[in-house]
Amino acid sequence: MRKYILASVLVLTALLMVSAYAGSGVGKNSEGQLPPAEMSSQTEGCINCHKSVQPGIVADWMKSRHSKVTPAMALDIPELERRMSSDEIPEELMSSAVGCYECHGLNPAEHTDNFNHYGYDINVVVTPNDCKTCHPVEVEQYTGSKKAEALKIFTENPLFSALVDTLTTNVAVDGTDIIPGESLAHTKNRSCYNCHGTVVEVEGMRTVSSMFGDIQVPKLTNWPNQGVGRINPDGSLGCCTACHPRHGFSIKVARKPYTCSQCHLEPDVPAYNVWKESKHGNIFNSSNQSWEMGNVPWVVGEDFGAPTCAVCHNSTIASADGTVIKERNHNFGDPLWVRVFGVIYSHPQPKDGRTYIIENQDGLPMPTTFAGDIAYDYLIDSDEMEARKAAMANTCGACHSSAWVEGAFAEMDTAVSEADTMVLAATELLQQAWDAGIADKTNPFDETIEQMWIKQWLFYATSVRYVGAMGGSDYAAFKNGWWELNRNLQEMKSYIDVRMEE
Amino acid sequence: MRKYILASVLVLTALLMVSAYAGSGVGKNSEGQLPPAEMSSQTEGCINCHKSVQPGIVADWMKSRHSKVTPAMALDIPELERRMSSDEIPEELMSSAVGCYECHGLNPAEHTDNFNHYGYDINVVVTPNDCKTCHPVEVEQYTGSKKAEALKIFTENPLFSALVDTLTTNVAVDGTDIIPGESLAHTKNRSCYNCHGTVVEVEGMRTVSSMFGDIQVPKLTNWPNQGVGRINPDGSLGCCTACHPRHGFSIKVARKPYTCSQCHLEPDVPAYNVWKESKHGNIFNSSNQSWEMGNVPWVVGEDFGAPTCAVCHNSTIASADGTVIKERNHNFGDPLWVRVFGVIYSHPQPKDGRTYIIENQDGLPMPTTFAGDIAYDYLIDSDEMEARKAAMANTCGACHSSAWVEGAFAEMDTAVSEADTMVLAATELLQQAWDAGIADKTNPFDETIEQMWIKQWLFYATSVRYVGAMGGSDYAAFKNGWWELNRNLQEMKSYIDVRMEE
Amino acid sequence: MRKYILASVLVLTALLMVSAYAGSGVGKNSEGQLPPAEMSSQTEGCINCHKSVQPGIVADWMKSRHSKVTPAMALDIPELERRMSSDEIPEELMSSAVGCYECHGLNPAEHTDNFNHYGYDINVVVTPNDCKTCHPVEVEQYTGSKKAEALKIFTENPLFSALVDTLTTNVAVDGTDIIPGESLAHTKNRSCYNCHGTVVEVEGMRTVSSMFGDIQVPKLTNWPNQGVGRINPDGSLGCCTACHPRHGFSIKVARKPYTCSQCHLEPDVPAYNVWKESKHGNIFNSSNQSWEMGNVPWVVGEDFGAPTCAVCHNSTIASADGTVIKERNHNFGDPLWVRVFGVIYSHPQPKDGRTYIIENQDGLPMPTTFAGDIAYDYLIDSDEMEARKAAMANTCGACHSSAWVEGAFAEMDTAVSEADTMVLAATELLQQAWDAGIADKTNPFDETIEQMWIKQWLFYATSVRYVGAMGGSDYAAFKNGWWELNRNLQEMKSYIDVRMEE
Repeated sequence: MRKYILASVLVLTALLMVSAYAGSGVGKNSEGQLPPAEMSSQTEGCINCHKSVQPGIVADWMKSRHSKVTPAMALDIPELERRMSSDEIPEELMSSAVGCYECHGLNPAEHTDNFNHYGYDINVVVTPNDCKTCHPVEVEQYTGSKKAEALKIFTENPLFSALVDTLTTNVAVDGTDIIPGESLAHTKNRSCYNCHGTVVEVEGMRTVSSMFGDIQVPKLTNWPNQGVGRINPDGSLGCCTACHPRHGFSIKVARKPYTCSQCHLEPDVPAYNVWKESKHGNIFNSSNQSWEMGNVPWVVGEDFGAPTCAVCHNSTIASADGTVIKERNHNFGDPLWVRVFGVIYSHPQPKDGRTYIIENQDGLPMPTTFAGDIAYDYLIDSDEMEARKAAMANTCGACHSSAWVEGAFAEMDTAVSEADTMVLAATELLQQAWDAGIADKTNPFDETIEQMWIKQWLFYATSVRYVGAMGGSDYAAFKNGWWELNRNLQEMKSYIDVRMEE
Repeated sequence: MRKYILASVLVLTALLMVSAYAGSGVGKNSEGQLPPAEMSSQTEGCINCHKSVQPGIVADWMKSRHSKVTPAMALDIPELERRMSSDEIPEELMSSAVGCYECHGLNPAEHTDNFNHYGYDINVVVTPNDCKTCHPVEVEQYTGSKKAEALKIFTENPLFSALVDTLTTNVAVDGTDIIPGESLAHTKNRSCYNCHGTVVEVEGMRTVSSMFGDIQVPKLTNWPNQGVGRINPDGSLGCCTACHPRHGFSIKVARKPYTCSQCHLEPDVPAYNVWKESKHGNIFNSSNQSWEMGNVPWVVGEDFGAPTCAVCHNSTIASADGTVIKERNHNFGDPLWVRVFGVIYSHPQPKDGRTYIIENQDGLPMPTTFAGDIAYDYLIDSDEMEARKAAMANTCGACHSSAWVEGAFAEMDTAVSEADTMVLAATELLQQAWDAGIADKTNPFDETIEQMWIKQWLFYATSVRYVGAMGGSDYAAFKNGWWELNRNLQEMKSYIDVRMEE
Repeated sequence: MRKYILASVLVLTALLMVSAYAGSGVGKNSEGQLPPAEMSSQTEGCINCHKSVQPGIVADWMKSRHSKVTPAMALDIPELERRMSSDEIPEELMSSAVGCYECHGLNPAEHTDNFNHYGYDINVVVTPNDCKTCHPVEVEQYTGSKKAEALKIFTENPLFSALVDTLTTNVAVDGTDIIPGESLAHTKNRSCYNCHGTVVEVEGMRTVSSMFGDIQVPKLTNWPNQGVGRINPDGSLGCCTACHPRHGFSIKVARKPYTCSQCHLEPDVPAYNVWKESKHGNIFNSSNQSWEMGNVPWVVGEDFGAPTCAVCHNSTIASADGTVIKERNHNFGDPLWVRVFGVIYSHPQPKDGRTYIIENQDGLPMPTTFAGDIAYDYLIDSDEMEARKAAMANTCGACHSSAWVEGAFAEMDTAVSEADTMVLAATELLQQAWDAGIADKTNPFDETIEQMWIKQWLFYATSVRYVGAMGGSDYAAFKNGWWELNRNLQEMKSYIDVRMEE
């Protein structure tokens, strides 16, 4: 009898192993199911203490793909299924799990935040320049993008700086006058700069009590921050954990719309909200529990049943027979031809992520004038627009007929230009108010009629333009859509009329 | 030893088969787990090309129940567990999977969008009249509903047409005057008509490049569209994929609240939002990952733990012992006695989905006058109201005591009538404004004070009425509820006062 | 051969049992997977009828932990893994499942809603005082909390009573005057009191038809209600099913953010909304499908990857090695040092949940005056504030460095005080309006300029303060954040200016 049991156990074990293997190849499949890879001695040192000091991040990393796949293992994966874009990995990193020291110990000479920590030279902040060691293509794409420039887009552009300062300013009241005070540093960090990034620099050392007594660690400015345009202590721009959060660095998380929705939210950037109300959002929300969110390449219809943000903007998409439909791109503006948010009027995508180098017909660093004239020299031309449109049509074509796609694109073109006309009407009313002395144009962002005008383009026209791009029709109707475009215009008129008559 | 292994494998296989079978009967259980059924030769033809041309929809269909169950197999299922409502299926459809050709090849004579496509006569659009072949009960119920008439409710009613036109109109500014232009066709399609439906007609042929050279396909107007009141090229009304999206036709998706929420959203129709904040929404969101969303009948407490929209409005609900609590109904207004959204004042449900045939005491096609008088002749009577209330109480009674249900219904009745009184107050203020010449009643939808009045009934009273029906109390309090009903009224008064004094 | 099969089946069964056991220990692991425990004869009696009368709640309970674990079994669990906080359970409850009668039959003498129901003495409402039989620590913590006092906070404080009455009042219009009527009882129950609780008393008996003929049951006032401050027929305060809903009493549900979001929602209490947009919300929404939401203790990094509300406010949190990081607490204000919502200005947490006993410098039962002076005597002192801050820092420290936590706390302190300054500015403008006769301060909540002031503190400052505490930056920027703090102030000024000039 014991023999039978032994045999059964062996068979069962073998079968379970087979089925486990089928679900956890090193290549295509997701991070969750692989066995741990060997750690470097340095990383083992880190973990020995930090599993007590910060058990959450150690456990997070232990579940990550980084803890399970060494660069050497990654190089064995067929290229299309690989997540690592370099094949020239430094020898000392090649055969260990991608652990604490492998990331926090890179490029010490470039890191002003490097410090000696129990004998190891450690950087507090891991930056895109560090991640570039294994992921150079992604970092290079990202570095040229508007995202990487997200903080500088504010600080290098006097108009946007003025808007940010107006919003984050404390005030005093004198009679019924409102006297603006200084712009508030912490409030800026917790609002605008939380998404756009802060300047993280070392401003000395601080003392921290540890389990082995007091230690010295670098003191960072404007910390913590995970904004997409963060300026890092090594001078690099960006923060990979903005989308691949904390110590899991998960592709699954980055592909979920909730990641994008941290920043791309109504009322000013309602990309997530609009998509969520679309048919695509409906299908995602109803079905994604059974989708494979981590596969590379990501197979349309099989791994996912409707696009999340990542499908159209980032990920490598393929059909079931392995044909690549679209290649991975970490410059998220590259697939797009028109720019629809954060702008007064829509316009072709800028050629360069550094939009503050634009100089329009009024001499301002904006892609359009207040009157809507477009600074074409700094923007992609119509050939490039058509090429991007064709590439996007190809992606849509994985599920839709050409008639469907062309119809949807035609509606988008019109939706965007019609929304722009409603902004122009608001600008004309604002000009009337300025001309009549009802408001003072010195700061165009700080009075009631000016704030109505801001809502027209920043909230309502943006909503309508996004619906043009992605469906989600209530955002073109009663929820920040055409209802508001018309209502707000009437309210601007009412505001002016009652003050004109005085 | 080999014998032992063989035995073990056999046993294990048998056990796995038993457990797989238990979870994938053709009848009660969900679509995901069945093997594929045999395709017709025509459908095989479609798929041979389209798996390359549109891999997403082919993969979507391959996961669907339609690819796995033939009509003949469906007829073998006990009636209560069946999703097909006809037992007179055409012989040629009986034994194949419900594939491309089985749906896109139906009723060619009635389809102006039928065209010859590589030797097959294909309709571009599959319509409710086609789905009726296997699902006649559902289509007949739907055809009499307000949903099927959703586009005509706009186009056949001059008041609603005026509201839609006012919202989707471009403007010019002349001094501080706002001059309305023409209503915008594309913008209508992307906003109001996206949910309500468009008129889809053939307006000629267009040339499309395919892998075998250029081909001719019908050119459709107002396409794409999946609105519930779409007028199709065969003259039928509606679009089943509005709720059973794309090529999965999933009952699971249709039963998820995200499907209804594509259109029934705040601020104008906040059904989804209100429900989501209720105890029912809390339980769904916290627990639905372990629910059986696809079972027919749908067993209360076992398959689901709290109602989604479909539980109270549509699906066949049963108790664990097989007792039917409520039968499936695709006329979604039928279970309801009071009409609470899209209306100035609440009133009994209309007898007929064609609400534009109503003529009220002012001669207008509205169920109430502006002053709140109800056009009772066109609405269900109090006996019918009581009968529907009793049926709903029976559904609620699957989880709640009669005291609970009666208490909730009493609160609903009062909530609805109290909200109506706040609308009447707003109407009276609007009348004052019209009488004083502060606004011009010619178009009752285009001036600031009129837009405040619209918000009172379309947003705020609707929110409160929905909370009456479904809980979700913040929508009766600070979020578009009583706070706004009172605040908006005060703002209307302030608006009038400052203009009266001039 | 039969022997081999027998052997295989035995082995397989054994292995499956082992694996089932590993996933369903009575202690640490979740409710779903245990076999049913033995019911008492009384509960069996209940279920025999109610499985037909209310099949949903019977099925709900059958899935609950209460149906599977007797108090005796619970006492065998190691203390850290136990959910029951008493070890002195009445003998008659010890060895049965925690069924219908075990809960609805407790403390009959204290229950005015006790009635004879087919021979059993049954309470309609199960109250915290009943749950206390097995969960005394939780109920005692809860009883001293602001939540337990949530209804009395309204009814015992004339200012909050006035606010509630102003919001839930019907009106008549006389010319352009708005004449307030009486406050509406049902509307109050469906709005404010839905979360805060109602007074549930017996006001006689009512007749109900049952399957065995008419029966008499108690008639309750203001029923149904599941508000956190409900006053029960036994005089106790609160309602455990507010968070552990219906008959599942699930710890998993209570730990999901959707439970808290029933009441803690924008615009007035946007805790859930703010958290959802934070990095923590992103990680939860992207990953929680694979988390263990029911484990006790709840292991950071292993069972969950980012905090839900319960992690910081309630649950027992431990590290993988069993070290307790934070102990369970059902007084949800206890971990907090500053009070940020439902208040004009932020201030230290009150010492006592009965905030209506506070008397400020103006003699009002509010923790601050209108001008912002703080009633320190009734609030925790700075030592207690520091102690709570240190405990929270310890929780954050499970995943974050001390620099991270200190940086985040510094931003919180500033965010909160800077938002307060913007409220003070609004109060000063309101005072101008009162002084100029533009508004009448008799009721400070019912006129347009007063309602603007309410929005400043109740909506906008609260949003900003929450972002200070939890991230979610758009609520400090354009979504009810600094944009609105500034815009609303300008609108108050515009409102006053145009009326001053007359």
